[in-house]
Amino acid sequence: MRAVIMHSPGNVSVVDRPDPRIEQPTDAVIRLAATCICGSDLWPYRGANEVDEAPMGHEYVGYVEEVGPDVRTVKVGDFVVGSFMASDNTCEICAAGYQSRCVNVHPMGGIGTQAEYARIPMADGTLVATPAPPEADLLPSYLAASDVLGTGWFAADAAEVRPGKTVAVVGDGAVGLLGVLAAREMGADRIIAMSRHADRQELARAFGATDIVAERGREGVAAVKELTGGLGAHSVVEAVGTQESMMQAVRATRPGGHVGFVGVSHGVELPGDKLFYSAVHLHGGPAPVRRYLPDLMRRIAAREIDPGRVFDLSLPLEQAAEGYRAMDRREAIKVMLTV
Amino acid sequence: MRAVIMHSPGNVSVVDRPDPRIEQPTDAVIRLAATCICGSDLWPYRGANEVDEAPMGHEYVGYVEEVGPDVRTVKVGDFVVGSFMASDNTCEICAAGYQSRCVNVHPMGGIGTQAEYARIPMADGTLVATPAPPEADLLPSYLAASDVLGTGWFAADAAEVRPGKTVAVVGDGAVGLLGVLAAREMGADRIIAMSRHADRQELARAFGATDIVAERGREGVAAVKELTGGLGAHSVVEAVGTQESMMQAVRATRPGGHVGFVGVSHGVELPGDKLFYSAVHLHGGPAPVRRYLPDLMRRIAAREIDPGRVFDLSLPLEQAAEGYRAMDRREAIKVMLTV
Repeated sequence: MRAVIMHSPGNVSVVDRPDPRIEQPTDAVIRLAATCICGSDLWPYRGANEVDEAPMGHEYVGYVEEVGPDVRTVKVGDFVVGSFMASDNTCEICAAGYQSRCVNVHPMGGIGTQAEYARIPMADGTLVATPAPPEADLLPSYLAASDVLGTGWFAADAAEVRPGKTVAVVGDGAVGLLGVLAAREMGADRIIAMSRHADRQELARAFGATDIVAERGREGVAAVKELTGGLGAHSVVEAVGTQESMMQAVRATRPGGHVGFVGVSHGVELPGDKLFYSAVHLHGGPAPVRRYLPDLMRRIAAREIDPGRVFDLSLPLEQAAEGYRAMDRREAIKVMLTV
Repeated sequence: MRAVIMHSPGNVSVVDRPDPRIEQPTDAVIRLAATCICGSDLWPYRGANEVDEAPMGHEYVGYVEEVGPDVRTVKVGDFVVGSFMASDNTCEICAAGYQSRCVNVHPMGGIGTQAEYARIPMADGTLVATPAPPEADLLPSYLAASDVLGTGWFAADAAEVRPGKTVAVVGDGAVGLLGVLAAREMGADRIIAMSRHADRQELARAFGATDIVAERGREGVAAVKELTGGLGAHSVVEAVGTQESMMQAVRATRPGGHVGFVGVSHGVELPGDKLFYSAVHLHGGPAPVRRYLPDLMRRIAAREIDPGRVFDLSLPLEQAAEGYRAMDRREAIKVMLTV
């Protein structure tokens, strides 16, 4: 099959790799309908993480091609969505809603879903099938559910967004923008999107942002406080993962408020005293997307939400390298790769 | 009046200071019945915080001596308990239960309650009166409510202790021990006290600990995991405030679990990536003791709880210096000063 490999930072191409096959009786193999490039794929692309001939991609929608003998809940031909973390969905941690930390967790990034086919471990626990094949125009939204929508949703949930609350969102990538959408769906009273880019501001407004703050760091915090009677937001979504963005999120939150952080942490050191006196709640990490998938897929099928709008560039899988370049240069918010 | 002054690290004495008086119409002046020495008073005593001729003490029970013209809810002669943070109890932050971060907050430590009398700002918001003068043997328990009980209670609440959960408590000072008591009252299924001292282990068991772990750091975490099927505790109370204790708390918590941290943070830097992948909830800070006072005082009056047992040494105010020495040398868990 054809599949994306990152040879070294900045060096991506599509190459021939062996077709995946059933390795465990609980595996499935899917034929990708679409996959995409994640903001987190840019960390190794930019040299911030080590990378050496790595398969890429952890987001996926597609059709079940083959199932192992122990697979019960999906069958050949089903259209399925799964999380970027394969999980058994039965262990005590999964049962508590933390499938991304399943005791048997298998990161899909190690398998690589920017490819024609992918093996899905623990298919019953990982995959959710639609009742019928999806309408073609919903494909991007289902693909978003695989990671960025689920991650933005988890961030808003971790930030305890509720009706009547004011929410601030730090980060205007796909996850931050979908954090805005999630906050709207959860009934937030006011949603402050922190963004300096006109196109992303526009999408944030379309997803439900009521206010835009272009400033960053201390100025950004001051602007959020000015919008909230000096107190700070009730809930803040952090969707970047840097020291500046984390501290911006903590400082923009009122005492007793909630920070939901999902930006993959890079070089962050949280000063304990600042955290102590902030009196905020802090929760985050790799989003347990699987927890939300059935609900999110229902909302997509019902056309209640349109998360697929974050894909502002669609390319064939063979042009993956161009997709990486476009995201790296911020020429695209998020790139879908059709297979 | 007589009052404790810390002249410099390790140098405490009782001196004459001017009697406090009503400064604002919302002030009260109380005559102390008892006060005490806090674990946090040991930070400056040991030179970890700067100190220069500072009044000391922020825990207090006593009788209202005088009230300003705008005070409505307490009257002269009432027996009252208040938090270590004076608060208006009406602002938006107080209304959300975070009185220790009240927009008009006034730290009682700046006033100094290791004294015969103390001015209490915002008396209506800060003080809670008992319906009748308390029975003498309950005095220590009411005094504990002023900080260490309320702080241990908040930590257990922040750690979302619930029936059926397993709780671990890092720190065997008064706050940690009362975190054990709080966890018992909140219905925890299993309570693991982390302590190396026989006397404190004994009190932890009396307060409801079901298991004792004497190991610290990585060995302590391994011991908690062994007691919890490899997963870690659902809820962990952190009551020390060092890098080691914070990381011990985070690592001893299962993914999706909750850390309630109340140890005043000293030199802590939380690595963002460790926090991210831990997937725990983190909440803490200066405890909003005022939120819990009415409930805690009712439980004390009904003799449902006996938090006063953390005072294993009682001295007259004049012997405060001896009390500091005893706590510094760990010869006493917590010292009550009678006035």
